[in-house]
Amino acid sequence: MTAACGLSALFDPASVAIIGASNDETKYGNWIAVQALRSTHERPVHLVNRRGEPVLGRAVHRRATDAPGGVQLAVIAVPAAGFEEAVDDALAAGARAIVGITAGFAELGEEGRQREAALAERIRRAGAVLLGPNCLGVLDTTSGLRLASNDMPAGTVGFVSQSGNMALELSRRLERDGLGFSRFASLGNQADITAADLIRSYTEHDGTELIALYCEDFGDGRAFAQAAADAVRAGKPVVLLTVGAGQASMRGARSHTGALTSDSAVIDAACRAAGVDRVTGVAELARLLGTLHRNRRGGGRRVAVIADGGGHASLASDVAEAHGLLVPEFGDALTSGLAAELPPSAGTANPVDLAGAGEQDITSFGRVLDLTLSADEVDAVLVTGYFGGYGGYGQALADAETATARVMAERIRAHGKPVAVHTMYADRPAARELHDQGVSVFGSVEHAAQVLGRIADRAERPVPHVPVLPPSAEPAADDDYWTARELLRNGGLTFPAARLVRTEDEVAAAAAEIGGPVVLKAMGLLHKSDAGGVALGLADEAAVRAAHADMARRLAPPGYCVEAMADTADGVELIVGVRRDPRFGPVALVGLGGIFTEVLRDIRLALAPVTAAEAEELLARLAAAPLLRGVRGRPAVDLAAAARAVEAITAVAAAHPEIAELEVNPLLVTPKGCLGLDARIVLGS
Amino acid sequence: MTAACGLSALFDPASVAIIGASNDETKYGNWIAVQALRSTHERPVHLVNRRGEPVLGRAVHRRATDAPGGVQLAVIAVPAAGFEEAVDDALAAGARAIVGITAGFAELGEEGRQREAALAERIRRAGAVLLGPNCLGVLDTTSGLRLASNDMPAGTVGFVSQSGNMALELSRRLERDGLGFSRFASLGNQADITAADLIRSYTEHDGTELIALYCEDFGDGRAFAQAAADAVRAGKPVVLLTVGAGQASMRGARSHTGALTSDSAVIDAACRAAGVDRVTGVAELARLLGTLHRNRRGGGRRVAVIADGGGHASLASDVAEAHGLLVPEFGDALTSGLAAELPPSAGTANPVDLAGAGEQDITSFGRVLDLTLSADEVDAVLVTGYFGGYGGYGQALADAETATARVMAERIRAHGKPVAVHTMYADRPAARELHDQGVSVFGSVEHAAQVLGRIADRAERPVPHVPVLPPSAEPAADDDYWTARELLRNGGLTFPAARLVRTEDEVAAAAAEIGGPVVLKAMGLLHKSDAGGVALGLADEAAVRAAHADMARRLAPPGYCVEAMADTADGVELIVGVRRDPRFGPVALVGLGGIFTEVLRDIRLALAPVTAAEAEELLARLAAAPLLRGVRGRPAVDLAAAARAVEAITAVAAAHPEIAELEVNPLLVTPKGCLGLDARIVLGS
Repeated sequence: MTAACGLSALFDPASVAIIGASNDETKYGNWIAVQALRSTHERPVHLVNRRGEPVLGRAVHRRATDAPGGVQLAVIAVPAAGFEEAVDDALAAGARAIVGITAGFAELGEEGRQREAALAERIRRAGAVLLGPNCLGVLDTTSGLRLASNDMPAGTVGFVSQSGNMALELSRRLERDGLGFSRFASLGNQADITAADLIRSYTEHDGTELIALYCEDFGDGRAFAQAAADAVRAGKPVVLLTVGAGQASMRGARSHTGALTSDSAVIDAACRAAGVDRVTGVAELARLLGTLHRNRRGGGRRVAVIADGGGHASLASDVAEAHGLLVPEFGDALTSGLAAELPPSAGTANPVDLAGAGEQDITSFGRVLDLTLSADEVDAVLVTGYFGGYGGYGQALADAETATARVMAERIRAHGKPVAVHTMYADRPAARELHDQGVSVFGSVEHAAQVLGRIADRAERPVPHVPVLPPSAEPAADDDYWTARELLRNGGLTFPAARLVRTEDEVAAAAAEIGGPVVLKAMGLLHKSDAGGVALGLADEAAVRAAHADMARRLAPPGYCVEAMADTADGVELIVGVRRDPRFGPVALVGLGGIFTEVLRDIRLALAPVTAAEAEELLARLAAAPLLRGVRGRPAVDLAAAARAVEAITAVAAAHPEIAELEVNPLLVTPKGCLGLDARIVLGS
Repeated sequence: MTAACGLSALFDPASVAIIGASNDETKYGNWIAVQALRSTHERPVHLVNRRGEPVLGRAVHRRATDAPGGVQLAVIAVPAAGFEEAVDDALAAGARAIVGITAGFAELGEEGRQREAALAERIRRAGAVLLGPNCLGVLDTTSGLRLASNDMPAGTVGFVSQSGNMALELSRRLERDGLGFSRFASLGNQADITAADLIRSYTEHDGTELIALYCEDFGDGRAFAQAAADAVRAGKPVVLLTVGAGQASMRGARSHTGALTSDSAVIDAACRAAGVDRVTGVAELARLLGTLHRNRRGGGRRVAVIADGGGHASLASDVAEAHGLLVPEFGDALTSGLAAELPPSAGTANPVDLAGAGEQDITSFGRVLDLTLSADEVDAVLVTGYFGGYGGYGQALADAETATARVMAERIRAHGKPVAVHTMYADRPAARELHDQGVSVFGSVEHAAQVLGRIADRAERPVPHVPVLPPSAEPAADDDYWTARELLRNGGLTFPAARLVRTEDEVAAAAAEIGGPVVLKAMGLLHKSDAGGVALGLADEAAVRAAHADMARRLAPPGYCVEAMADTADGVELIVGVRRDPRFGPVALVGLGGIFTEVLRDIRLALAPVTAAEAEELLARLAAAPLLRGVRGRPAVDLAAAARAVEAITAVAAAHPEIAELEVNPLLVTPKGCLGLDARIVLGS
């Protein structure tokens, strides 16, 4: 981890050198020099080029150490072969921050990875930081630092990106919406400075209000999630775009930055914990940033739809519901109030259809909006349709429409509830006026509904909580069933009574001691059931001895576990597992066992360890959750006991970094409690 | 149903009258007159207004019958009170088609509905047709007919809409893409001319290549689906936007056009049968029409992703997969071929990342595109990223980029595979050149991937087949279990052996005759199981008599069904039901019984009757389908027998219009066959 103080040299250095500055317009050394020279009034900019010929009409230094007054930030854009020499040169010139544009390191394989690690170590030892290598530059519009290939608009979004083109695409979209970047940093291979470091730096940066990331590799995923959670708690939303949902994008990311990608569901789990808004595309990223820029207050699911046409009213209602919003029928008071403003054919019960009121009197929009925003039953408003187009009928109407836009914006500010406006005339003056007054305006109703859905999601979200890994416990000595069982039992999970024995007589004695029907399990097998190493419901000594004889003959196991047979009546079998993700560490999985997990993939993930409260929420989010609450005449199971069991299981896994996988399957939950019926562990490599 | 010949008077009339033409700029009578007067060179346009004062500077007639030469098409835009009189006037003037702009009929309730029905009947008796009422006009750019409130761009899309604003929004979006309308008809309340009539008319219309609909009420849904299927078979794609997914939009549609909406899943089933492309928004509708306009050939799921940046390469791959496409790793030959064109750091295995090749030589795009399109392993190509932006570096590069765009377009035409291009510079010359050369260009990669996904879906679709309802059979005399069972048994469904009896001795005798364990069911109860009217697994006479005594005491049923107890080992229980939709008639539902249907809503619908082949496909599309194919050591069930059973059940329901609901639940399917274990019917009102 890099000290945050080191990043002041990255974002607001006293002086800058471009090592590898070039006149060749196809090279980064040219593009970045062009941008850097636009800000020489902010700080000295030195161009460095071994050939010593002028670049972009300016004299160059052959070495960074030749720059008078030294160099605090060095951008290095030389061929890979000369990178180490350039780094040494920069450090000798006093550089506290190095931006490695040069590619050809970890993304090419193991040799490159080692070379890169050595370089990063050398830079850290010198007390400096490295952004990249294989990155595309850095930009801080609040300090006038322009060290990226292109100029980008200024604004309040701090962006971290592992792709230059993604930054360009986002900057173009933000610019159209009147937004821009406070800071932009291209991550590259993250040999030293990581996404987490940059999030921390942006959180402290006054000019940054929103943090956005395009990230392929999360490095230390827990540190990333923790930094993001801290930013969110500090009032700076974090929005993430990432890849790796499929094999193809993983291939792409590997060849791009040598990234080690995580399963998309694991990233979702990390985002949930950290309170990060995850998006799936650049357009959605830009829209969400625009919305968060304009509105970070309150919100909820109950949306009033206001349209000036029946088709748009109905369509917007469906679209709103598709984005998780509710369009509830209004109460009598609101309906009557609206009816008093509107013609008889108007829809007044939600959706609202002005049905010609706009044509008759454009100011209707302001009054209808005010009425709906005033109602306690309305959390947010979705306006859809023609507003913005009325002005096309003449200047008087155009002026009145723009004036109405101002009234609408004023009412929206006064009520403080989220409002999104869709108009087929988003480019016309009244719509521009709404936008300029801080109202979210969209050309597609889907986009308007989507941001209201996002705001509602955010309003329901708990305070971010990224679980901290406990200190490591004494490592598990073995990976057999008994070891797993004892680890979990000591961690607080309840199992049926059991004895670990070896001989037939011991088996019979243990069964007698436990009493009632028992289960016999052969030890030393990873998948006992599949191998015929489990015999259920052995009701008497003869059955126990017969089962032992059969297993002894077929499997010759080193030992046996004799267990009380659990009463599965009215029970539901869960599966609870924990797997170590290379980036995010132990990740818990819960689901109903059998076909629910294997066929329907009805599972939920969370960063481990999971508290009992979090576990209850995970279980409640399963599609099959109604089975736990009791359906078709079955009683509800003891969800609290199941949640405590999940807490115990995930705590054990989190405390044992040597365990790559831990699974309790089935975990039987009945109306009366919860029992582990089987367990297995896989030790890591 | 209206004769299609009548629609020539609607779309290409010899003369036109606007009854209710007005100088008031807030009225439709003004807007339509303004548009109509732009085309007086095509045909005489008469303005009619009772006051007789000039309108828009032109002399008016007080009555349509005053118009010299008569009136073939009359647009009526008078207040509701004067509508009947205006209709009589128009018919007296010889009108063969009436466009009813006037609102205030069926959408206001039952009285309006009756008045509207009487009017439609009067018009039909006079040998004319009625569009509307409560509609917004009609337009035919191929005959120069302009009778809508706004002008709309000319093109090849025939549009049918139950919303004027939706038509405006679509026309604006199409216009930006260089497309427009051949015809537009506003449906209104469909008192006479229906959406199906218009689809048939558009199918025959040479100027129409694509048919699009915004529809809230499908009227005779089977006729609609049949007309759409005919259009699709005739080579004219039909794209549908509708509402009614939620309660709110149904409220909206009811107050808008008095529409009777169908469940969204039923509409999906009708669209599948008819080969209709359903969309969920206007923007998606416009994009799909644009794509179908440019490319209706071939396609498939295996997509090559070509990017000029690693981030865009990975993101586009994920987005493509999210839209149902595959991004498979390329074979060695294609990978080597690409590697020979590209720098060492390029991605060549899919996704393709040019990794600077574009900057070095813009013509790389053409060669890489050609290589991928040439490969048999590639069905379609998704280009994403910066193309279009290179020209920003100078005029020479701009010219080269535009020339490359022409080469790309030429290669795309030559290969005949679908290609969609996303560029962050969609407004720049090279991107415009691609678009003008017929290539689909998008500003968002999601949109590019979506249309490729749609094309792949279309390529996999069977020939449209809308099942025809069989002649009605003798109506069911009763709604009891035995009647349902006998109807289905006669229809070919197999049930366990059974006897219908009344007394205890008859019950015992029937059980003995059937042999083995039996089931006793009390007759005369709709929900036998819930009422305790079903006793399973009665193994001997004593058990049979005891069960009878218990039921007789508690329920005093009019009779009993004694059935052989089915062997459920290795079986899966299905639910097969048929319900009459008010618009689309009998709709079949299949699912796995119990929690799969009740909790997980894992069901599939289709218009009934369903053939065995269609039934197999429905079952295969269930999320739980792997259970039918055998998982976790269980054998596969007899899917063909299950499919034949679905065919039999749905055929019975389709032949009995008096049955509102029919359900076989459970339908037991085992490795050896398929048996109905229970059945119920609900007779319609």
